[in-house]
Amino acid sequence: MIDIQDRIRNKTLLDRIVTAEEAAAIIKPNMNVGTSGFTPAGYPKAVPMALAERISKEHFQINLWTGASVGQELDGSLAAVNGIARRMPYQTNGDLRKSLNSGKVNYFDLHLSESAQLTRYGFFGGKVDVAIVEACAITEEGHLIPTTSMGNTASYVQSADIVIVEINTSQPLALEGMHDVYVPLDPPHRQPIPIVKVDDRIGTPYIPCGLDKIKYIVPCDIPDDVRDFAPIDDNSKTMSELAIEFFKHEIKAGRLPKDLLPLQSGVGSVANAVISGFVDSDFKNLEVYTEVIQDGMLDLADAGKLKFASGTSFSPSPDGQKRLYANIDKYRSKMMLRPQEIANSPEIARRIGIIAMNTAIEFDIYGHVNSTHIMGSKMMNGIGGSGDFARNAYLTLFFSTSVAKGGLISSVVPMCSHIDHTEHDVDVFITERGLADVRGLSPRERARVIIEKCAHPDYQPMLTDYLDRAEKATKFAHTPHLLDEALSWHARFLQTGTMKK
Amino acid sequence: MIDIQDRIRNKTLLDRIVTAEEAAAIIKPNMNVGTSGFTPAGYPKAVPMALAERISKEHFQINLWTGASVGQELDGSLAAVNGIARRMPYQTNGDLRKSLNSGKVNYFDLHLSESAQLTRYGFFGGKVDVAIVEACAITEEGHLIPTTSMGNTASYVQSADIVIVEINTSQPLALEGMHDVYVPLDPPHRQPIPIVKVDDRIGTPYIPCGLDKIKYIVPCDIPDDVRDFAPIDDNSKTMSELAIEFFKHEIKAGRLPKDLLPLQSGVGSVANAVISGFVDSDFKNLEVYTEVIQDGMLDLADAGKLKFASGTSFSPSPDGQKRLYANIDKYRSKMMLRPQEIANSPEIARRIGIIAMNTAIEFDIYGHVNSTHIMGSKMMNGIGGSGDFARNAYLTLFFSTSVAKGGLISSVVPMCSHIDHTEHDVDVFITERGLADVRGLSPRERARVIIEKCAHPDYQPMLTDYLDRAEKATKFAHTPHLLDEALSWHARFLQTGTMKK
Ligand SMILES: CC(C)(COP(=O)(O)OP(=O)(O)OC[C@H]1O[C@@H](n2cnc3c(N)ncnc32)[C@H](O)[C@@H]1OP(=O)(O)O)[C@@H](O)C(=O)NCCC(=O)NCCS
Ligand SMILES: CC(C)(COP(=O)(O)OP(=O)(O)OC[C@H]1O[C@@H](n2cnc3c(N)ncnc32)[C@H](O)[C@@H]1OP(=O)(O)O)[C@@H](O)C(=O)NCCC(=O)NCCS
Repeated sequence: MIDIQDRIRNKTLLDRIVTAEEAAAIIKPNMNVGTSGFTPAGYPKAVPMALAERISKEHFQINLWTGASVGQELDGSLAAVNGIARRMPYQTNGDLRKSLNSGKVNYFDLHLSESAQLTRYGFFGGKVDVAIVEACAITEEGHLIPTTSMGNTASYVQSADIVIVEINTSQPLALEGMHDVYVPLDPPHRQPIPIVKVDDRIGTPYIPCGLDKIKYIVPCDIPDDVRDFAPIDDNSKTMSELAIEFFKHEIKAGRLPKDLLPLQSGVGSVANAVISGFVDSDFKNLEVYTEVIQDGMLDLADAGKLKFASGTSFSPSPDGQKRLYANIDKYRSKMMLRPQEIANSPEIARRIGIIAMNTAIEFDIYGHVNSTHIMGSKMMNGIGGSGDFARNAYLTLFFSTSVAKGGLISSVVPMCSHIDHTEHDVDVFITERGLADVRGLSPRERARVIIEKCAHPDYQPMLTDYLDRAEKATKFAHTPHLLDEALSWHARFLQTGTMKK
Repeated sequence: MIDIQDRIRNKTLLDRIVTAEEAAAIIKPNMNVGTSGFTPAGYPKAVPMALAERISKEHFQINLWTGASVGQELDGSLAAVNGIARRMPYQTNGDLRKSLNSGKVNYFDLHLSESAQLTRYGFFGGKVDVAIVEACAITEEGHLIPTTSMGNTASYVQSADIVIVEINTSQPLALEGMHDVYVPLDPPHRQPIPIVKVDDRIGTPYIPCGLDKIKYIVPCDIPDDVRDFAPIDDNSKTMSELAIEFFKHEIKAGRLPKDLLPLQSGVGSVANAVISGFVDSDFKNLEVYTEVIQDGMLDLADAGKLKFASGTSFSPSPDGQKRLYANIDKYRSKMMLRPQEIANSPEIARRIGIIAMNTAIEFDIYGHVNSTHIMGSKMMNGIGGSGDFARNAYLTLFFSTSVAKGGLISSVVPMCSHIDHTEHDVDVFITERGLADVRGLSPRERARVIIEKCAHPDYQPMLTDYLDRAEKATKFAHTPHLLDEALSWHARFLQTGTMKK
């Protein structure tokens, strides 16, 4: 058995060490199970696999609440045995995605900043029955030292009747001290969240739990299921350059301070590439207030350009993970993980004035953004924190390549097939073709700029034609649309395999 | 001339009293003009009318920034002479609405909580050139006592080079002391907004201005252009009852405290009716944190059920206005006006946990809301503060009658023709047919509940048929849509005058 004894500092807890199977046995059908984990980092692995094994024989379902996406050992193995009835708030796992796009799982896709409080409020049907938490160690007092993510763990532990702790020896103990745990009181008792600078420390370095709540402790040594990013291609590089050029222009115009404002950068390859672009820029003293700390942030730190990064999870590539683990002592003075309720807090985002940079699946000529659905119906991942940041940022940028699927799809469309961010929320759109700054523009003005700067030349004439005809048909209404044509590009793609005529 | 001498407490200012025409003469073409005013209350009247008169002869345009909608004397008279190039952030005036739906005015529709900060950030092309402010009085130090609204006035005055003050003698001096003026610093210097209770006082009772900035003072006695509400009909009454019943149910379930949480209630007749419904309920000690204080709030106060109401404007009916003016001393201990940046602050809404109740034009089976556009293209009013509140509330409710135009339009549709609030933002939908509580439900579950509880029987079979076929066609994708049919109801209405087949 994996030796975790030295990670359990209160020796009275030692007799609660059990196998994953024993721990999983306590979970009953239809329970609300809240776990640690955020973007394949810091989620429990052994107990979920044992639970899936049990479900494959006993055939029941649970409701699974996490921080965000989790790895194959949790989402994948439970989806494979049809063990999830309800899932929230975010996912990226292939098996699970198939299940929720075929009527097997009821997925509730919500703003990540709200997921903890809505469970505390009891809005999802009961509280957390069992919390399963990956930890580096348990303190003398029975408090939990988190691993590579904070997510909703502190809140789930607070609400849960029963806590199962997975001590993961693949997670270095040196992570201790990099977390800042703060769970706000609920209305009408909530107080201001006292963060005014990205590195303000407002909580404890551990998750308050206590000896009594810990039911079982399970040893584990499976590492986080981190994934490689796509190599940084020319399109990503161009988008990154466009963003940096724009920021310089804003500084000149007096609309941004010279070291910028705290950066937020979304999940995925494009977001990672954009941040990497800063490494070769002449920006210094950059601050980051974001969800996920990916390789790009490590690059920034290594290049001496990072003043401080606050996030809720470390989700590097396999190489990045090695780099992080090998140099924690270097990174610890520059990085901190907070609960996602704080990392994604609208209050903080607006106060400190973050610059929000997220990736869209598609956006339309009037400035609406689809972050979640392929052709209006199929869920990709979820809105994640993009809404928390886009709505409340100082500046909101969305990135996308101008086309997808080798040009068969235009990512700039007459009308989005699903809308996650409205025209009221976005300042700047960037594709590899250019940058559209739509601040203060009316919808018709926005449309001209977005088509000119962002759309692919193959689709520009079609978009302009749509706009011209819509303006004429509606006599220049505020937002001209031809309702029997607005979604015809998507319908055509579904029928013919291309948006082109 | 109207006597305003006793309202100008610093006598060195007396020689700045001029006619409206003289004051209007200082405004140059293409200037950014920021005015007081929020939902026909507390906006300048004399100078705008003189400006419109001048524009009718000299033919030029200005950009008009207000708090929200303003009266005929400002929006109406300037629109009539084609004097507005750009307009933000909200409007309800018939003439202006025509102009912005015919390509004459570029209207930028944004979240009301953001309008002040985005002008301070310089995102709309320059700062405020001239601020025109209606005031009750000017203090010894040259500070301004606002009238019936706070809106963005304090921020516009702070940013403006030149301030024109309209002293309006129709506005009772007794309003003094009912305002709480606080303009936050901008990032990276912003601090927490220190409100934790609806009646917390955090600023000054006047708008800081100073003697130097005041260029002209203009007398005026034109009252606010307030409008009657539609009489409270059976539909509104039913919706109000459904909401109150729901709140009682939530209290029983332990999900709301017994005196509820601070109520926010939107603009218009339905919203007013909902609040009025509380008068006959057995709720006591109600708190309100909202934008507009309409007649319903006065009713609540008169019935002894209001603990405190914080808003950004008084916009009662003509009768309500009389009642307010005649009893200010009674209302002053229970009501306060704040800048809309504070009244609509996401930070405060989430902290104190407001209950947001707003009206939709239409919503769709998956829970998206259209607050602004008629048939996807024509702007009605604007998003106003609905997004500030809906996104950050403890509980978010949207109201609409199930049909419009005597049944020719279903307000519950397969897909909204415009989306202002996404599926991620709404907890409860209410029509006169019933209440759909969609918390924690997947889109397909939501659709069944919304159709069953909220749709009109004439349209229920059509909606169910759409959903059934969409599920089949997409093989039960997360959000099943038939993209060539999703907007066909609206297209049909435009072609045939009815959504019915
Ligand atoms: C939008 C999002 C899916 C993009 O991720 P990414 O890794 O940068 O994007 P990719 O270009 O690899 O696209 C992902 C897939 O969508 C497809 N796609 C992209 N644009 C498309 C479009 N307009 N229409 C249809 N499919 C499209 C791609 O082809 C790819 O499909 P594949 O998996 O079959 O190859 C991702 O950023 C996301 O989930 N965002 C929502 C959550 C969020 O923003 N979180 C950050 C807050 S901190
Ligand atoms: C949505 C809104 C327009 C409803 O206002 P209201 O006075 O309660 O609504 P009404 O029922 O009188 O409807 C207004 C008009 O829209 C029309 N309408 C209503 N539903 C419609 C629909 N589904 N399709 C087309 N037209 C519709 C009505 O027929 C009416 O038209 P008319 O002026 O030609 O008679 C109003 O609440 C608004 O502007 N909201 C956005 C801003 C907001 O929510 N602010 C509050 C934040 S504090």
